[in-house]
Amino acid sequence: MYDLIIIGGGPAGYHAAGLAARGGLKTLLFEKRGLGGVCLNEGCIPSKALLYSAKIFDYANGGGKKYGVTCENPVFDYAAAVRRKDGVVGRLISGIEASLKSAGVEIARERAVIAGKTGGGFTVEAAGTAYQARNLLICTGSEPVLPPIKGIESAMTNRECLELTEVPMTLAVVGGGVIGLEMAGLFNSAGSVVTVYEAADKIAGPFDREISGMLQKIYEKKGVVFKLNAAVKDIAELGAEKTLVSVGRRAVTSGIGLESVGVPTGRGAVLTDEFMKTGVPGVYAAGDVNGKSMLAHTAYREAEVAVNNMLGRRDIMEYGAIPSVIYTSPEAAGIGETAESAREKGISARETKLPMQYSGRFMAENEGEGGLCKLVWAGERLIGAHMLGSPCSEIISTLSAVMFREMGIEQIKKIIFPHPTVAEIIKEAIFHA
Amino acid sequence: MYDLIIIGGGPAGYHAAGLAARGGLKTLLFEKRGLGGVCLNEGCIPSKALLYSAKIFDYANGGGKKYGVTCENPVFDYAAAVRRKDGVVGRLISGIEASLKSAGVEIARERAVIAGKTGGGFTVEAAGTAYQARNLLICTGSEPVLPPIKGIESAMTNRECLELTEVPMTLAVVGGGVIGLEMAGLFNSAGSVVTVYEAADKIAGPFDREISGMLQKIYEKKGVVFKLNAAVKDIAELGAEKTLVSVGRRAVTSGIGLESVGVPTGRGAVLTDEFMKTGVPGVYAAGDVNGKSMLAHTAYREAEVAVNNMLGRRDIMEYGAIPSVIYTSPEAAGIGETAESAREKGISARETKLPMQYSGRFMAENEGEGGLCKLVWAGERLIGAHMLGSPCSEIISTLSAVMFREMGIEQIKKIIFPHPTVAEIIKEAIFHA
Repeated sequence: MYDLIIIGGGPAGYHAAGLAARGGLKTLLFEKRGLGGVCLNEGCIPSKALLYSAKIFDYANGGGKKYGVTCENPVFDYAAAVRRKDGVVGRLISGIEASLKSAGVEIARERAVIAGKTGGGFTVEAAGTAYQARNLLICTGSEPVLPPIKGIESAMTNRECLELTEVPMTLAVVGGGVIGLEMAGLFNSAGSVVTVYEAADKIAGPFDREISGMLQKIYEKKGVVFKLNAAVKDIAELGAEKTLVSVGRRAVTSGIGLESVGVPTGRGAVLTDEFMKTGVPGVYAAGDVNGKSMLAHTAYREAEVAVNNMLGRRDIMEYGAIPSVIYTSPEAAGIGETAESAREKGISARETKLPMQYSGRFMAENEGEGGLCKLVWAGERLIGAHMLGSPCSEIISTLSAVMFREMGIEQIKKIIFPHPTVAEIIKEAIFHA
Repeated sequence: MYDLIIIGGGPAGYHAAGLAARGGLKTLLFEKRGLGGVCLNEGCIPSKALLYSAKIFDYANGGGKKYGVTCENPVFDYAAAVRRKDGVVGRLISGIEASLKSAGVEIARERAVIAGKTGGGFTVEAAGTAYQARNLLICTGSEPVLPPIKGIESAMTNRECLELTEVPMTLAVVGGGVIGLEMAGLFNSAGSVVTVYEAADKIAGPFDREISGMLQKIYEKKGVVFKLNAAVKDIAELGAEKTLVSVGRRAVTSGIGLESVGVPTGRGAVLTDEFMKTGVPGVYAAGDVNGKSMLAHTAYREAEVAVNNMLGRRDIMEYGAIPSVIYTSPEAAGIGETAESAREKGISARETKLPMQYSGRFMAENEGEGGLCKLVWAGERLIGAHMLGSPCSEIISTLSAVMFREMGIEQIKKIIFPHPTVAEIIKEAIFHA
């Protein structure tokens, strides 16, 4: 009898497993593919490794000239970059595995299915064996949505796209959200002719509209073609050597036996409350499977909340200060409300904005480039922030801290940002507001 | 009659001028050299512009290979990089000037001297004209310390070093603090044979000893020679084509007429209280001239405190959460106490630390490289943080916010850092502690 069985070893599952085991729970973690889940194996990490290679190649391939650096015959050995990416992923998986083992987590590399509830707990079956646990944590994650497009079986998802070892001459990207834009950026740098098809009237999903538009213009200058309001009906009609479909992800709720214990679902996801409890006492869910935010860092925090509540430490999940990032070049990052989303919610908000060029460091490291920092205020309180300009991915966590503590404008003014940093733009945007 | 005369247009002076004018004070700003002071003209900004060129060159010059990027005949056109640097500085100066003018600040490009106090206020003389003001703000900054070394007149300070348009074959750096290390890194990348002479038993001044040691080892691998506990007596004996002397800076307190109104000084600096007031009512001082921290971002905050108090808004300067950065490659950043400084102050502190390799993004962008994140705790409260690994300069402001709000460990755990970022190392270092 285990205290906890976790189904799924992605960010939610492995983080929860380590915390639970260190908290004294006898914990068994099932993962049918690779530890680390989509994020580590075919998402966040491999894309960042390849995008960094692409960024270095951009400089060698003419981008260094304005900084006084030139060279001849630049080569992007894409297969070598992919091998390096595989090495990075492998080392991180080993690290997670070692960490879980040292915490005392049992890991089973099997597909697990919930089989029912007995007096003492839940039964989970895997490879013909039955396991019992007092608590269950469902972390089965998400999978790509495959829309009913003719020829969809010939298209790639993020998984196959990140496994390519050759650069296609032409790449069609169906879906201009985060994944689509990052892959468009990667293969644009690597030499593909890239076209992005987006069903909405803007790229980058819920990202701030002005920043999305600026990012689109930047990539248009680099040669990416964007087709907005596009209804793709047939992959063959796109005429590209390779096509990536990245129109969204949906929770994985089937084939895991949720019905055997009656875990309620809604809109295709497991329903969870603020304690990450499902409708069945003793069954928790965390990560993409609850369909709330579909971000690895949300999953980590949900995992913490779930385990804390199992351990009797009251903890509540809050979704108000979760940042999101697009790792294009330049990066875009946002947190909280946009002026548009605030208006839709009936929040009286005002926006202050400042070009990134007000940061001396941005000027020093981004010759001839632009960027933007927007802050959204409800009275004196910061309720949103949106940035275009690297490395805003690393800067936005300052605003996570600020928004988590619900700091007001007079307090934010007193935070000392080191000079010169791009992060100072936050302070500049307040003082110039 | 002005409400405020500011002497010195560096970070403290120009920031104060804009705030004061927008706050309704009739403000006159004197600057004898370039607006932006040492920081913008011959310090922080020009060095960052050149260091970024050097970073790009490092990748072209063999550093890209491990990421799958190669090229032939890489060239670092150092003179072109310097021209670009000059352009960046010029645009930023223009930006400050435009911002001050739009705020209504009068700018006088003259050397100004305090001449005395009358019933109505203070008299300042410049180019034969006398000006009157109710308040004075002294922002005369600092200058390099020139130690009594034989041949010192042949050596460069940061000013001349950043004006070089050719890369010396050999460079001797006397003083292994922030400026010395950044210039050593720059010219090491550009091809100079660099030797750093440091009087102490470690480089990087008060930076965490372990991180300083790691940074030294990294640069030793790149070919920089470090001579610790070095007593340099004669520049000629160093035998280098060029020598940079960067052993420290001291406040500029002479030649500005402090004695005419009796402004008290101590240990070579203007004495200031927590309101940035000097010993003379109506006379304030901010920035390097008070000798407290000698960092541009400290100067900005001191300027805000000074102006707020002039405007009748009580504001207090706190020195407990001021970050500092070394813009080497990799970067180092620190804030608050080190374990060593805490021990010296009798604070009971414990340290938690984690290699940067626990960050997936660090792994994705720093092939084969190491780094470290150290957190220093007094009970549940974070009192210091020290990092080695880029871009920690941009990450440390999250810890400025955390320390400013005196957040405890349980609160910091709940901050959501986007994944994957290097910033996540902060959270990892807490969960693995």
